[in-house]
Order: sequence, then structure tokens, then C-alpha cells
Amino acid sequence: MKIGLECIPCFVRQAFEAGGLVTSDNELRERILREVLSYLSEKSFDGTAPSIGRDIHGIVKTLTGDNDPYYKAKQDSNTLALQLIPSLKGSIQDSLDPFETALRLAIAGNIIDYGQGDTIDEETIKNALSQCLTQPIARDSIENLKHELSQASNILYLADNAGEIVFDRLLIDELQHYPVRLAVRGKPIINDALREDAARAGIDTVIEVIDNGADIPGTIIEECSQEFRERFFESDLIIAKGQGNYETLSDSPKKIFFLLKVKCPVIARDIGCNVGDIVVKKKGTV
Amino acid sequence: MKIGLECIPCFVRQAFEAGGLVTSDNELRERILREVLSYLSEKSFDGTAPSIGRDIHGIVKTLTGDNDPYYKAKQDSNTLALQLIPSLKGSIQDSLDPFETALRLAIAGNIIDYGQGDTIDEETIKNALSQCLTQPIARDSIENLKHELSQASNILYLADNAGEIVFDRLLIDELQHYPVRLAVRGKPIINDALREDAARAGIDTVIEVIDNGADIPGTIIEECSQEFRERFFESDLIIAKGQGNYETLSDSPKKIFFLLKVKCPVIARDIGCNVGDIVVKKKGTV
Repeated sequence: MKIGLECIPCFVRQAFEAGGLVTSDNELRERILREVLSYLSEKSFDGTAPSIGRDIHGIVKTLTGDNDPYYKAKQDSNTLALQLIPSLKGSIQDSLDPFETALRLAIAGNIIDYGQGDTIDEETIKNALSQCLTQPIARDSIENLKHELSQASNILYLADNAGEIVFDRLLIDELQHYPVRLAVRGKPIINDALREDAARAGIDTVIEVIDNGADIPGTIIEECSQEFRERFFESDLIIAKGQGNYETLSDSPKKIFFLLKVKCPVIARDIGCNVGDIVVKKKGTV
Repeated sequence: MKIGLECIPCFVRQAFEAGGLVTSDNELRERILREVLSYLSEKSFDGTAPSIGRDIHGIVKTLTGDNDPYYKAKQDSNTLALQLIPSLKGSIQDSLDPFETALRLAIAGNIIDYGQGDTIDEETIKNALSQCLTQPIARDSIENLKHELSQASNILYLADNAGEIVFDRLLIDELQHYPVRLAVRGKPIINDALREDAARAGIDTVIEVIDNGADIPGTIIEECSQEFRERFFESDLIIAKGQGNYETLSDSPKKIFFLLKVKCPVIARDIGCNVGDIVVKKKGTV
């Protein structure tokens, strides 16, 4: 899906915030902002948000010389999420439908999205987790996902953010008896999960983890590595977490279940739901 | 005070929102955004926010051909505020200190600020009003203002926004026995109050109303009319409502009491308070 005009102020805010994570030098932060403003004033708005996001965060990386401005934020999110896991495992075991509970918790983890500019503290995450357990999700979608899982012979799980990936682990534990592998981003971009975040969640000890070779906060197939593209196209079911994967794959013909918490009006409009909703949405067939 | 870098994303958001008030033509809205992005990428950040705000809203006015994008929003705010007045008059009469109650309600009205991008509905205003009656204000400040009022021979009250000006009327009723006149902006800018808004609040029937001749969401003396400048400099006490007046007059040597609800971190930092605080702050001496 294409960006909306609402995305433009949001990109400028992201550039301001990302600069602030790396430096307190106001002159440098001003240079970042001016470069991003100039870039956006001329850039075509026909692309997806993750493609423009890559360029904007690329400006931040180039001007600051820091290739991973969100490194500390990612570590903090992982640590925080890992502390919450033992009690959540209990909730899953005690629930009537462990798969659905794990699915809901994995979607709740999608609140940890620094692209959205919210404060991600323990309270925010705990609220999202408890809300997510009772928020409506179409019953059909969950049953349909279960059915597709039982039919699939090659499942690819596209992770989204650090911290969030720790909650993905809960769902992956429920998927262990299916033929599933997980893919993370190839290079640092915002707080998106990398191989090391998958390792902190211990996912590499239970299923195969690959990376997509790219530095995009989403999945633009043409920009991913040859290996990832092969894994992507040979899969017969994809589970894609988060807004960035939705924005870049919503027009793909592949059979994809998008799992996300809707955090912005542009995506809510495209899906036909409200900001704040949690979504299990199937698109594509092949 | 100078703008902060946080103001830059905020300006882009304002341009997006102001465009949307006038037109649903996405191509035109995109042109507005591109022009504003290009302007901001080159503009010196040494000015005040209201001076840059004037330029940005000037771009919106020029490209849309609409000289008053917030006209309907201003009328709606006035109407909404006028509906709340009768019961608020009762609260003032019944209160232990009618002056302080009217002062607090006038500051609460400062929530009606479309520059901040919040939704200004009846509930938001009612919440601000009830909150403002109990929020802490330094007792010294209120007593100091009362003292200065009793000593002044020429008081100038600088209004801020439409809607808000209806609540200013409550405070002006308490000031009727002082030598006070009210000044509004000279030309449309965001939802700032003009002569017609002062008239809807009935202020012109109780005290003299002047305008400052300018189209700036604040008070930049050099850009105001000769008449306003004379009234400004001959006054021995100024009451200035809102963030825009603070941003443009906080370095003035004039004896000014700023009354505002703090709605952004840049101003909170300058004043040394928190976002959400209500403030009665004296600056200057002459």
C-alpha cells in the first residue's frame, strides 16, 4: 500500500526522534531534519512507508555515523519483554485455547514500535497485553489460520520488532510441530528485530532463523537477498507481523496472515478498521 | 523565545491539517506539504514559532486561495463556548474568590488551540474547565496579579484564540472596574481571535477592543500596526493569553502576566514546568 499524506509529518517526527537517540548535538540534529525535509519535499509519494522510512533513517545513520541508533532501545525492549515471559507462559498453559492466547500475546507485542513514537515502558506493554487478551478478533480468522497451518508444508514467519520478537516466541512455541522458519531484517533499521534479537528470544534454538538481507522496516521482496526470496516464494503460508510487513506485502499474491496492532489511521483506513484494533487478516492465495 | 527542533514536525503536521480543513483535493494537499517541507528545509530556525507559523499558514492560504481556513472551526468554538457560559457565571458568583475562578476559567479556555492539533470537542473543553479549577497555581502569582491590577493605569489584554475569547469575557467582567482594553489579531491566522470573535463574546460592549494589524499567531511588535504599538508601549500592565503570545513576548521588557495552559514541551522547558500545567507567570517590569 502507498503512503498517505498523514505519513509525512510522521516521517519528520521520526527523523527528529531518531536523531535524538544518537546525539544531543543540536546542530547535527538540525542538519538531519533539514536533509529529511529536503528529501521529502522532492520524493515521490508513490512508494510504501517502509521504503521512505529506510531512506529517512538512512539519512540519520549517514549524518550521525551511527548505523544502529535504536540499538539500546532494542536491548531494553528485549530485556523488558523477557521479564514478562514466565507469567505469560502460565497464562497460556492455563487458558482454554493456548494457541489463541499465544497469538493474542504475540499481536500485543506489536505495541513495541519505535516508528510510532510512543513511549514503550513496562506499563504500556502490560496494558497492551491485558487488553489484547479480550479485544475482539473475528473468530473465523483464527479458525482459518489454524486450518491453513494444518495444511501448510512450508511456513515463513516474518518478525517485526525487537522486544516484540520475545512475544513471538510464545506463538512459535505453539507452532513447533509445524514446518515453520522465522525471518528477521538483514540490517539495523529502527527497532526492527535482527538475528541477535531472535537469539535473545531463544527462537534459534527451536526453529530455523534466516534474515532478509535488507535494511527496510518491512519486506520489499526485490530488495531482499536471493536466499530470502527463495524461502519466501517456496513457502505456502506466511505469517507477517506488524504494520511495516503489512504496508509492503498487502498487495502480494502470496497467502499471508497479517498479525498486527493497528497504530495509525493510514493503515486503519486500508484495512477498514480502527486505530487500536488488533487484526488477524488473510490476504492472497498462493 | 526561539523555536525548538520539536517544532519542526509540529509545523509539518499543522500544514497537513490546515490543508485538510480547506480542501479534500489530495494533489493540492500534497503541493502544500511539499512547499512547506521545502520552506522549512531552508528557513533559519532562529525565529519564534509564531513567525514561522505565519509563513506556513501563509503557504496554505496562498495555495488554496482561502484566507481563513479555520473560519468554521472558530465559529464552532465560539458557539460551543457560549453554551457553557451561563453555568460558569454561576460558578464564579458562588465561588469564594470570583476573580481567581474567572482567571482559572479564562486559562482553561486556552485549551482551544488548533495549532496543537488536538480535537476540540465539548468534552475536551469541559474536562479542561473542571481540571483548571483545582490545578495548582502559585498563590503568589495570583496575589501579585491582583496587586499589579490595582496599581495599573493602562492595562492591555492580549487575546489568543476564538472560543477561548468567550472565556476571557468572564475574566474581563471581573476587570471591568480597571482601565483595560483588549487586543485581538489583525488578520486571520489559525484559529486566533479577530474583532468579530471579540464581538461574539460581547467584549466590545464592555471595554474597548483594538486589533494588532498583523496575521501572526502571537505578538511580534515590529509587525503590528502603528496604533497597536502605541497602545502596547503606553500600557503599564499587559495580560497575555496563550502560548503564541508567550513565545513572542517572553523576552520583552514590558510588565506582562502570561496566562496559559502549557501544551508543548518546548514551552514547558522554557517556563520550567510540565506539559498540562496552567501558568500565571510575570515577566518584565516596565
